[in-house]
Amino acid sequence: MSVDPSTDPEGYKRQVEKIRASYEERKAAASAEKGLIAVFTGTGKGKSTAAFGMALRAVQHGMKVGVVQYVKGAIATAEPDAFARFGDRVEWHRMGEGFHWITQDAELDRRAAAQAWEVSLQLLGRPDVGLVVLDELIVALRLRQLDEAMVLQALQNKRPDQHVVLTGRGASKELIELADLVTEMKMVKHHYRAGIKAQPGIEF
Amino acid sequence: MSVDPSTDPEGYKRQVEKIRASYEERKAAASAEKGLIAVFTGTGKGKSTAAFGMALRAVQHGMKVGVVQYVKGAIATAEPDAFARFGDRVEWHRMGEGFHWITQDAELDRRAAAQAWEVSLQLLGRPDVGLVVLDELIVALRLRQLDEAMVLQALQNKRPDQHVVLTGRGASKELIELADLVTEMKMVKHHYRAGIKAQPGIEF
Repeated sequence: MSVDPSTDPEGYKRQVEKIRASYEERKAAASAEKGLIAVFTGTGKGKSTAAFGMALRAVQHGMKVGVVQYVKGAIATAEPDAFARFGDRVEWHRMGEGFHWITQDAELDRRAAAQAWEVSLQLLGRPDVGLVVLDELIVALRLRQLDEAMVLQALQNKRPDQHVVLTGRGASKELIELADLVTEMKMVKHHYRAGIKAQPGIEF
Repeated sequence: MSVDPSTDPEGYKRQVEKIRASYEERKAAASAEKGLIAVFTGTGKGKSTAAFGMALRAVQHGMKVGVVQYVKGAIATAEPDAFARFGDRVEWHRMGEGFHWITQDAELDRRAAAQAWEVSLQLLGRPDVGLVVLDELIVALRLRQLDEAMVLQALQNKRPDQHVVLTGRGASKELIELADLVTEMKMVKHHYRAGIKAQPGIEF
């Protein structure tokens, strides 16, 4: 499929032009402006990282960003500290302090998830917040700590100018149906399997 | 697969415990410390965004980060400005100023890619740089603007304590073979297809 630019410059030119044209075409065809619902799901790495990368971009564009972390991993991540540099343009809510890994108590976990959802609803209702990141909310849905119909309805009724990003493995068909942009992170290879341990800066 | 926590609390507990145990097991089994080669590939969104999210995490951990952008998109992204806040902990090299989209000239493009590779090699050689992001390098490989054998060899010989992240669709089998961590971003759904245009904070 790939041509050798040194022996076939014309073929190269056609190949590049094709890539460019298909990109421009899709962009030109897209004209409606609206707040997007984006989903990063799948078993691969980079779901939350991509969501936080979007948050970084949004604050740089002058938006106010709200983040709700539904499930805290075993190790602290550096993101809340990094985003603290942006002052009040980022509101970071770290919920479920280790909750579902530790308690394994359905009732406690549901209460923690309900609390995180309460905070999420407040952010979704605020006209000054341009982007809401609901990190690992999809895990809470998968574990049925939250009622999915309730969450979907709130997303459907969100302010039209607000962007929402949801992360977590195991997004349902219904959520994918509702979202505008869905990326599945597929794990092709993972270094844990090769006996290399979690690294600062890479894992947390 | 998912149990209802309200009617089956014991089943819920088992489910959560299984998730936790498999995660802990893999983490415990992984003991070697080494600089990783991570690849974000595939046609979905979030490849560069995840790489920049990793960069954010790394600077927060006190690492120095070098970024080389091989292929600049049609629109300017906010990341270089956002990372400027971290002062000299981030070195940002924006190469190929629109090069392959515009010139479509194989020889010009190869020269631009060679220049970007030169900068990359310098970053890979520096003991003070903990993480090197080679953004869209994989596109330059796919278009054969760079010799893949040369790139693979440099990655193989990199300093063992340095992390390298490569992005771009179309990673080769050889690159995947060499990498420690490979995530394929699969496009499940894209709003361009639904006629919604590129949004600041989401796309750029």
